[in-house]
Amino acid sequence: MISHGIPSLDNLINELSRLPGIGRKTAQRLAIFILKAESEFADNLANAIIRIKSETRLCAQCFNLSEHELCSICSDSRRDPKKICVVEDIVDIMAIEGSNEYRGLYHVLGGVISPLAGIKSTDLRIQELAARVKKNETDEVLLALNPSTEGEATMIYISRLLKDKDVRVTRIASGVPIGSHLEFVDQATIGRAIQSRQEV
Amino acid sequence: MISHGIPSLDNLINELSRLPGIGRKTAQRLAIFILKAESEFADNLANAIIRIKSETRLCAQCFNLSEHELCSICSDSRRDPKKICVVEDIVDIMAIEGSNEYRGLYHVLGGVISPLAGIKSTDLRIQELAARVKKNETDEVLLALNPSTEGEATMIYISRLLKDKDVRVTRIASGVPIGSHLEFVDQATIGRAIQSRQEV
Repeated sequence: MISHGIPSLDNLINELSRLPGIGRKTAQRLAIFILKAESEFADNLANAIIRIKSETRLCAQCFNLSEHELCSICSDSRRDPKKICVVEDIVDIMAIEGSNEYRGLYHVLGGVISPLAGIKSTDLRIQELAARVKKNETDEVLLALNPSTEGEATMIYISRLLKDKDVRVTRIASGVPIGSHLEFVDQATIGRAIQSRQEV
Repeated sequence: MISHGIPSLDNLINELSRLPGIGRKTAQRLAIFILKAESEFADNLANAIIRIKSETRLCAQCFNLSEHELCSICSDSRRDPKKICVVEDIVDIMAIEGSNEYRGLYHVLGGVISPLAGIKSTDLRIQELAARVKKNETDEVLLALNPSTEGEATMIYISRLLKDKDVRVTRIASGVPIGSHLEFVDQATIGRAIQSRQEV
């Protein structure tokens, strides 16, 4: 890709192309759009980017994204504080909230145990989870980690850790996605769906 | 798409999704990336967006994008000032420069004549072009407008306007794109390629 001879344009294209999934061509198209848009649009976009870094932090209780000490979920009195759903990342909270099926609280681990990537249980917020369960008389911990090898291992680790505590530990079901066709579903998923079969 | 309960995140997603080709899902992914990236990345991106609006203007001679009175092309003494390539938009200059085939100057019209869109010849920088041709003893005006109906009409308009001036008016060739297969090329392009056939 040639330089355009305009340092500020080259600079914006460079910065935009660092975003995931944005190549040089797309970055150029976005930069030209910003260039031609009203000044107000560029100002709003730049401010939104600065604000997201300066005004957000992690919830002191569940480590979800928040603009206050406690996040909007932890501070919502209509939610059941005796249920904790354990997720890897804040984006998983967004996905679960989108389903409208869960009305308890969350706990963001910040990853999963992965010896290959050098992530040990002490690198995650597992002790904080154990402390919450003990303190809040939690009656259910729902493990909603991604069904990868590392996710499975982490779910087993947490369930063993909470074994002697008076709490029910559950996990979200794995199986055939709604709307999919069996012929296109991978073997591991079909195998799990058969193992987890339920009475009709 | 649900709100995330974090105004600064929702705000950034809204702003990002105004960019062309960026839907809500992609905007969310980009926003989360910016959120998790180093503060330096967000600062650089925001500054690049502000800079492109504050530090660029149009070249006083050719209306290309520039950070100075004259753009880098107009002020380059190695380029032939007696040739002017007429384009619709600054992005067309980038495309032509990428081909490394042209060493003259440019003139950005700012659009093409389009009665349907209400764009008249006086809305474009056609008078400025005529003035440049007269003043600079230009020997060739190369019309490189997009080969649409409006582009064709505008090329005809300009060539008539410059008819009595002592200048050669040329246009870029239309034809079968390099690397394409005839069976997949549209009929109008093949028709034009046959009309414009050349001796081998």
